[in-house]
Amino acid sequence: MLSFLNDYSEGGHPRVMEDLMRTNQESTVGYGFDRYCEEARSLIARKIKQEGAETWFLAGGTLTNLTVIAHALKPHQAVITACTGHINVHETGAIEATGHKVLGLPSENGKLTSEMIEDCLAYHEDFFFVEPKMVYISNTTEVGTIYSKKELMDLKACCEKNNLYLFMDGARLAYALGAEENDITWEDLGRYTDVLFIGGTKCGAMFGEAVTIIHEELKKDFKYSIKQRGGLFAKGRLIGVQFISLLQENLYEEIGKRANEAAMILRDGLKELGFISPYDSPSNQQFVLMTEEEFQKISSVVLCGVEGKWKDGRCRVRFVTGWKNTEEEAKEAIEKIREILS
Amino acid sequence: MLSFLNDYSEGGHPRVMEDLMRTNQESTVGYGFDRYCEEARSLIARKIKQEGAETWFLAGGTLTNLTVIAHALKPHQAVITACTGHINVHETGAIEATGHKVLGLPSENGKLTSEMIEDCLAYHEDFFFVEPKMVYISNTTEVGTIYSKKELMDLKACCEKNNLYLFMDGARLAYALGAEENDITWEDLGRYTDVLFIGGTKCGAMFGEAVTIIHEELKKDFKYSIKQRGGLFAKGRLIGVQFISLLQENLYEEIGKRANEAAMILRDGLKELGFISPYDSPSNQQFVLMTEEEFQKISSVVLCGVEGKWKDGRCRVRFVTGWKNTEEEAKEAIEKIREILS
Amino acid sequence: MLSFLNDYSEGGHPRVMEDLMRTNQESTVGYGFDRYCEEARSLIARKIKQEGAETWFLAGGTLTNLTVIAHALKPHQAVITACTGHINVHETGAIEATGHKVLGLPSENGKLTSEMIEDCLAYHEDFFFVEPKMVYISNTTEVGTIYSKKELMDLKACCEKNNLYLFMDGARLAYALGAEENDITWEDLGRYTDVLFIGGTKCGAMFGEAVTIIHEELKKDFKYSIKQRGGLFAKGRLIGVQFISLLQENLYEEIGKRANEAAMILRDGLKELGFISPYDSPSNQQFVLMTEEEFQKISSVVLCGVEGKWKDGRCRVRFVTGWKNTEEEAKEAIEKIREILS
Amino acid sequence: MLSFLNDYSEGGHPRVMEDLMRTNQESTVGYGFDRYCEEARSLIARKIKQEGAETWFLAGGTLTNLTVIAHALKPHQAVITACTGHINVHETGAIEATGHKVLGLPSENGKLTSEMIEDCLAYHEDFFFVEPKMVYISNTTEVGTIYSKKELMDLKACCEKNNLYLFMDGARLAYALGAEENDITWEDLGRYTDVLFIGGTKCGAMFGEAVTIIHEELKKDFKYSIKQRGGLFAKGRLIGVQFISLLQENLYEEIGKRANEAAMILRDGLKELGFISPYDSPSNQQFVLMTEEEFQKISSVVLCGVEGKWKDGRCRVRFVTGWKNTEEEAKEAIEKIREILS
Repeated sequence: MLSFLNDYSEGGHPRVMEDLMRTNQESTVGYGFDRYCEEARSLIARKIKQEGAETWFLAGGTLTNLTVIAHALKPHQAVITACTGHINVHETGAIEATGHKVLGLPSENGKLTSEMIEDCLAYHEDFFFVEPKMVYISNTTEVGTIYSKKELMDLKACCEKNNLYLFMDGARLAYALGAEENDITWEDLGRYTDVLFIGGTKCGAMFGEAVTIIHEELKKDFKYSIKQRGGLFAKGRLIGVQFISLLQENLYEEIGKRANEAAMILRDGLKELGFISPYDSPSNQQFVLMTEEEFQKISSVVLCGVEGKWKDGRCRVRFVTGWKNTEEEAKEAIEKIREILS
Repeated sequence: MLSFLNDYSEGGHPRVMEDLMRTNQESTVGYGFDRYCEEARSLIARKIKQEGAETWFLAGGTLTNLTVIAHALKPHQAVITACTGHINVHETGAIEATGHKVLGLPSENGKLTSEMIEDCLAYHEDFFFVEPKMVYISNTTEVGTIYSKKELMDLKACCEKNNLYLFMDGARLAYALGAEENDITWEDLGRYTDVLFIGGTKCGAMFGEAVTIIHEELKKDFKYSIKQRGGLFAKGRLIGVQFISLLQENLYEEIGKRANEAAMILRDGLKELGFISPYDSPSNQQFVLMTEEEFQKISSVVLCGVEGKWKDGRCRVRFVTGWKNTEEEAKEAIEKIREILS
Repeated sequence: MLSFLNDYSEGGHPRVMEDLMRTNQESTVGYGFDRYCEEARSLIARKIKQEGAETWFLAGGTLTNLTVIAHALKPHQAVITACTGHINVHETGAIEATGHKVLGLPSENGKLTSEMIEDCLAYHEDFFFVEPKMVYISNTTEVGTIYSKKELMDLKACCEKNNLYLFMDGARLAYALGAEENDITWEDLGRYTDVLFIGGTKCGAMFGEAVTIIHEELKKDFKYSIKQRGGLFAKGRLIGVQFISLLQENLYEEIGKRANEAAMILRDGLKELGFISPYDSPSNQQFVLMTEEEFQKISSVVLCGVEGKWKDGRCRVRFVTGWKNTEEEAKEAIEKIREILS
Repeated sequence: MLSFLNDYSEGGHPRVMEDLMRTNQESTVGYGFDRYCEEARSLIARKIKQEGAETWFLAGGTLTNLTVIAHALKPHQAVITACTGHINVHETGAIEATGHKVLGLPSENGKLTSEMIEDCLAYHEDFFFVEPKMVYISNTTEVGTIYSKKELMDLKACCEKNNLYLFMDGARLAYALGAEENDITWEDLGRYTDVLFIGGTKCGAMFGEAVTIIHEELKKDFKYSIKQRGGLFAKGRLIGVQFISLLQENLYEEIGKRANEAAMILRDGLKELGFISPYDSPSNQQFVLMTEEEFQKISSVVLCGVEGKWKDGRCRVRFVTGWKNTEEEAKEAIEKIREILS
């Protein structure tokens, strides 16, 4: 059956797998100190035009988030996020388990603004409150929306003014960069974030994430934090190899672009069929509202998932495209949905 | 100057101090295993009509809250509270520092209802979310309101149905019990809570809090938790002595009643002067909204405190009465405020 | 250059890689709920003859250890290990970071005995001490030694008597099972441990570890713990596929046996060359003592590593074999060492 | 019965109690920002001749230790202590519960030396280990011994050289300062420690401890740490008042001296009776070894306590003197012991 369940249903993109196979029998030192990781590090530093940036490779998104946040904060400090943020509602309290409060601010579209941050800071007026110290944003967000360059610059200015770190969770960064309306470049990412999580697992890699530390203060002792939280990958070079594959010749953005194109066909088709989306997503995740009955019918011809209930009781149904989905599949899916509902 | 800054501005109630002085030179074993603590324990068990209840004595409210909650929850479990709850906004992330998420639900009057809890549970649908396992309520609440017996029974039924622990933070329990409209008895407290924090510090004791564990599951190993979190008081008997003073002959409720009476005079007087309160508080904390200028004027004749800003920008000013404040003082304060404002 | 640096210098065993490539483009559900993980689970349950055993797949050893231990213990409980245990000295305080004390008992050969455990329990006499609740052993140990069936049974009996969980870290289990003197079977592992970590990364897998929970009490909510600690692998099926490859036809033990055979050649050769080993290791890790000068010479022809200093100041040098090393390589290495030293 | 059970069996020293009673009805601001705490702070700063020192008041020793250590360390950092250190064996894993490893070094007399510290640092060679960052010493130690000025200076020099913080737990500092052979002054304490815990509870106060922060780096945000860990005392002024009583006119040292004098009589008497002490204690804690039978007999006439077993199976019995014990009581105790044993 056609599947739009998620962007981690398959293994890695064929070109990534090829590189992994080609280098499989080589012997290298472990823990990410090998030549492949070194090369991937340089590649990223050049792409974001931050010579001093330090990149580390980990094996999963929650692990990456908790390691970065627990590393950056002192015990009494907290991280600000949109209430929909992955760290707030989809990581089983992973951040709190490292001792830090997550301040989830109400947001309709998955994004934060500098006004929201300023209000939050004003509320935390003395030492009986936690001290907000980091701002976490995801791009694409958990509801598929993306930040504009102007929005990102505005957040960065707010963070600098208030002495906050800006952390971008790019578990789905390929789909943000590959969105038609995107105007953020790699260079902007380097300039307007303090820590950048470049997602691999959901963006064509077999597995693995890269964390690039740009802010000087956050570099110190990060390797201790990775090891302590369990993220230091023995065969680190496996992730290095994959990021070279993805980033060397823009395969990363291509994967994003292609998956988004399939997603746009789903979006337009679902809209035409009368389904309303609560979010304006230009990327690979498309959410629409439907009744339980509609969902059951559609599920019999196309795999998609219910992600909670909307305020009005309807199902919030998600369709996700990945490196393996094509425009043809998307068209076929819309046809099948049209048929089953008619 | 007349002070209504808080209910911990002075030492202990004279009767409590007398008992502490009388017993000061006696030698007892430490850590709360002495005869005074034993007697205080029995007293509480009899009052709440829960023979098997186990009571421990600690030296502060935040310490009590974090010890109880960290003891009760497994790492992936969370505690539900009204967003105004002390543990959510006034303990510098103490609960999160023990690894647990605090789920702060929007509430206008500082209270929780079973509907709010059910909605919260429904939202936490699978293991990617934390698992709500405890409900934290305060009585009086942080805004001075109190629970009715019906409300408490309803919460308890909801907790039992959903396998949640109900924890009442009674840092200001004397003022709840001493409120004119209160219909909750000590016996109700025993029947409708799983853990009960009986406040001493703010209710006439020199210092100290009692934690009474009613739910069987929570009794095991609690002494380990107290010691580990730093709450095991070497001279435990000092707190035992004080709770005997407070609870033996209803001094506790008398202190609450008397302070509330003074607070009612403040409430009525402030209302008459045109000040609006956002909460309907029958207890020793009275909140009114005023401009910065009004606050400055009033502060020059009566001590009170600003507790953040209201949505409209006005100051949320708090007047608190304690064991030392009298109705006469309250009347005098209103007169002085009337004069200074006219 | 010939490398005996470690058993994670290369990617995966060719048969494992083949299976990963073959299944790469299939679509499955995520997080280890796919058919491959299900099959791997059944396979393990059958091998250890524990029908009710539950197996989960994670991406690294430290992550596995900290997840299991933090899951099993209450806040005041501690884990016992040999002082050389990986969790005590090689995980940057990962266990303590989850809030638990690691009780490292002096041990010359990397192993624990029931006497050592009993002494430790006797010392922890009241609630001012942590409560030991889990025993952690590694097999092979960090110094290459292995447990006999008798020793394992004895530990298990001690744990049962004292109500402790027995956790075996088998990051290098293949080399323990493949050792000539080994008399522990898969069935014994099921019978005499409460949680079993079956290592993949260091035993021929491309990456990944399996955790098999045998003790009933530890099964509940384990998925929450994995997610919270960051170990829930989105493409879980990748690890499931690998464990099927390794365990279906005894590839796992074969890999262990073959690497051990190469290691025995190293052992005998080094001994003949006059090097003394502080441990009696029948497995793929061989430690010998040498001067800094000797190490420098040898390093110029064969890659090996210094793992700290011995009491007498000499280097503790480690040679490790893995799935890719052959007996021929070992022989060649010994020859080269002989030459360079002569 | 004569009691030498511990130094926290009674309430506060009469002079302390008098001051508490005298000031009981005054109204002050809370949380240690009142005039009494200010005065006590100045007093301490002057005594230790460290103008910039910042002092905070907490309600118990374990709470003080865990707050200081959790405040000072980053997640991957550890604290070094003698294996007998209170934080290592008598606080139910309180430090580990805040996420940090306690490195307990073997010590026969409860003390650390710079050699022990250097060895420990050498062992922690890379980021797979925790990073030792703080040295914890207690004075008097848990076995009654004290540091000389030379020893303290040597430790401080070692800490400065290695960029470690030196934290002195002076829960029983009065007895160290009051020991006949002591040559450490208050000024030395200011000069040779980075954080100093001045014990009240066990040294004549009714309750309460003072923490004086000398090292600049540790001052920042300490109030957040105190509040978060539950140590911010609402009626902070109660502790301030007590420290003024104790420190203003050397009552503190007098209490120590007097209790030590009683202890010396116990020491000499027990020695004369043939009991051997494993430690050379010049202070208020005296340990002797005896059989279970001897202990039972003695206990029938004088209260003392068994603190674990000695290596040879004998009981390690502790006699403690406090502000209330006199030389006469000590003499009487020795007489009674002589009689019962003869």
